[in-house]
Parts: sequence; C-alpha cells; structure tokens
Amino acid sequence: MKKEEECKIPNATAKRIPLYYRYLKILEESNVERIKSKEFSQLIQVPSATIRRDFSHFGELGRSGYGYDVSYLIQVFSHILNTQVEKRIALIGVGNLGRALIKNNFRRNEYLNIVSAFDSDPSLVGTKINNITIRHMDDLAEVVKKEGVMTAISTVPSKHSQGAVDSIVTSGITAILNFAPGRVKVPDNVKIQYIDLTTELQTLIYFDENFTSNHQFNFANQ
Amino acid sequence: MKKEEECKIPNATAKRIPLYYRYLKILEESNVERIKSKEFSQLIQVPSATIRRDFSHFGELGRSGYGYDVSYLIQVFSHILNTQVEKRIALIGVGNLGRALIKNNFRRNEYLNIVSAFDSDPSLVGTKINNITIRHMDDLAEVVKKEGVMTAISTVPSKHSQGAVDSIVTSGITAILNFAPGRVKVPDNVKIQYIDLTTELQTLIYFDENFTSNHQFNFANQ
Repeated sequence: MKKEEECKIPNATAKRIPLYYRYLKILEESNVERIKSKEFSQLIQVPSATIRRDFSHFGELGRSGYGYDVSYLIQVFSHILNTQVEKRIALIGVGNLGRALIKNNFRRNEYLNIVSAFDSDPSLVGTKINNITIRHMDDLAEVVKKEGVMTAISTVPSKHSQGAVDSIVTSGITAILNFAPGRVKVPDNVKIQYIDLTTELQTLIYFDENFTSNHQFNFANQ
Repeated sequence: MKKEEECKIPNATAKRIPLYYRYLKILEESNVERIKSKEFSQLIQVPSATIRRDFSHFGELGRSGYGYDVSYLIQVFSHILNTQVEKRIALIGVGNLGRALIKNNFRRNEYLNIVSAFDSDPSLVGTKINNITIRHMDDLAEVVKKEGVMTAISTVPSKHSQGAVDSIVTSGITAILNFAPGRVKVPDNVKIQYIDLTTELQTLIYFDENFTSNHQFNFANQ
C-alpha cells in the first residue's frame, strides 16, 4: 500500500524516523517522559538542529524549555512507521547468517516476524529452525501469497544473489534487505537495501588507523 | 598506528574508499582493465561527479575518453586502506549471530581474520567453533595483547553492551563494530560503528510502504 500523501516528508528526515522511534521507545522503557533536543542529540548522535528541523515537519511537538513529550512522539512516529502492523518476512538463504537471523527473529520487536525461510539446497528443505520449516526456493511465490509476506531478507552469497533477488521480485515482494554487497538489478517499484559487513569493517579499521579524533559511524544518522 | 598525513582526504571521500576498493576488486576478478566514471557510477550507485571528485584527491588517475585503470586504482586504494596487512579481530558475544560471524569469518577477504572469541557464559568457555576456542571475557586483555588484536566485533545484546564495550576498551582495542544499536560511551580515541539491523529493516519497509519511486539504501554511499 503506497501512501503518497506522506511523501512531503523530506527523504533525509524519513530515513531518521526509525532511529528516532527506536530511541524514544528505549526512553519510554526507562520511564523518561520528556526530552530536550539537546539531550536527545547526545543520545542518538544526530545534531540537535537536525532533530528540531525534522520534528517540525510533524507539527508543534516541542515547547521551549520543556522539551518533547516522549509518548506523544512515539504515537506520531508509530503511526508514520505503521509499526503496529505485523511485517511478515521471508528469509532467503539458510546458511550460518540466515540461521542466526531466524533464531534471533527480531525478538525485541514483536511486529517484525520472519515467518518463512527458503533455500535451494535439497538437504535443508523440510528441516526446521525455531518452528519455521525451510522450503525450497521454487515454492517462494506460492508461500509469499499464502502467508502475506511483504519483505525479504536475503543472505544468499554474491555469486547467486541476482538469481535469488529475481525470484524474490517475481514472487511479488517489493522490499529486500540484501546481505550480499554486490549491486543487483531490480525493477523501479522494488526497494533494496544492502548490508555490507566487510565494507563497514574496513571503513572502521581505516578510520581507526588514520584518524585520531572520534568518529561515530552510524551511516543512517548522516 | 596513526598516519596523520593522510587526514587531508575529506571524510566523505574516505568513507567511500572501502566501497570503491571492493568493487574494483570485483572488476579485476572479472578481467575488466579500465572503467569510466559513468560505468563505475552505475555499478556502485554513487554519482559519477562524486567518483571523479573523490579520485582527483589521489592525483591524475583517469584520462578523458579512456577511463580509469583498474589495477592502478586498486594499488592506490590498497595502499591507503593498508589491506594487505592482516586485521586481527576479536569476536565478543558468542550467541547465534556471533557464531555465524565466526563460521563465515569474512572468507572472501583473507586479511580480515577473527582470531579469538569471548563470552561470559561459563558453559561456552572452552568450546570451539571453526578451530577458535571461546575464552572468558576476563581473559580478553591478555589475549588481545598476546594475539595482536586491534579490532573487536561485539554482538553482546544492548542490555550488556556498555559493559562489554568497557572491557574491550580496557583491553586496548580502539576499533569496535557493535551489533547492539544502543549508543555506548567510549573514549575519544576509540572508533565505534553500529550495525542496527532492526532500524535498517524498518527504514526499508517504511520506504517501501510510502514511496513508489526507487531508492537504494546503502548509507555508506551517501
């Protein structure tokens, strides 16, 4: 479901909303009822001016000297993120990493659920991890439809990544988190996000070896 | 070892070097000898003007109409990234994800090596994964010194993340890749990078639900 009317939020702001939401939930769990942009800035390592500008897109959410109401912000962002609707996820590629993701299954977030898993290795098909039966890739489209899956996480290695992504796209899924760093081709209506652990690690080490001042690297913040 | 003379490379450029390097290696493996900034741009989803500007920091590396020499660029970036020196890594927290990381151990990159693993669970201490014996957290500082470890990957859950990071810092490690999203305190000389899979996934789903045009989300590219 595309809600075009929300496109007026700038892209850069939109990208920060999940981060804001996550930290507001942590504050709520710690019984913090309100927070100033400066304190929030220190917590999440985003400049306070950016936070104030971002929040201003959602109306007058803060008051000078008082700060922002945590539970109200959570309500607003939860609505935007549609977090209280279950996101049903298919896990593609049941190697070491895939197995770990199924076992963890975003346990800190009850609305993110890996509900099915797929591999093309016949020796894995039919086995179970955490009550999820591994199915063959050939059954992907059928299961996606039946199970109402909207999102895929692929841990298929680079060599076979394009093929796996093609099958995912054919199944009707439009959001893919891909742990293979090699860029793959997808149609314009499909969103793909890459997690490239090797490059993240090399970047970290490079900065550690070459710069003395502190850098925090959550790219999502920048 | 800090090489201050390389600080003149802009931060944003420096962050892209590992990505450039990675793709140049892929091109080399495919026997591509030279590439134009436009083609490289399509491959890695970074604007060609950015690529040309970045490359210009390393001297006259390309010629108009000819493109860039792949093996020469690899030489230059490899020198900058110091990739041909083994990076010895300690893995902290041997749960599902830690176990998967040890088993995979950056196998596509021979210079990134997880050489030791630590947990505070006594039932894990002494067991082996991929020939790596899991040691107790209390032994971290000793092993780090003996093994020449410079980098840590922590998969310790948020609740215990600060404590784990404190031990890592005390051991003398100055580069930490942290899979717990909660921001932790580290001294100024320590670099920390967060990998937050839940937020990455929520961002992806949010964009999928709210925007129809294509967005590629490798934050490292931006």
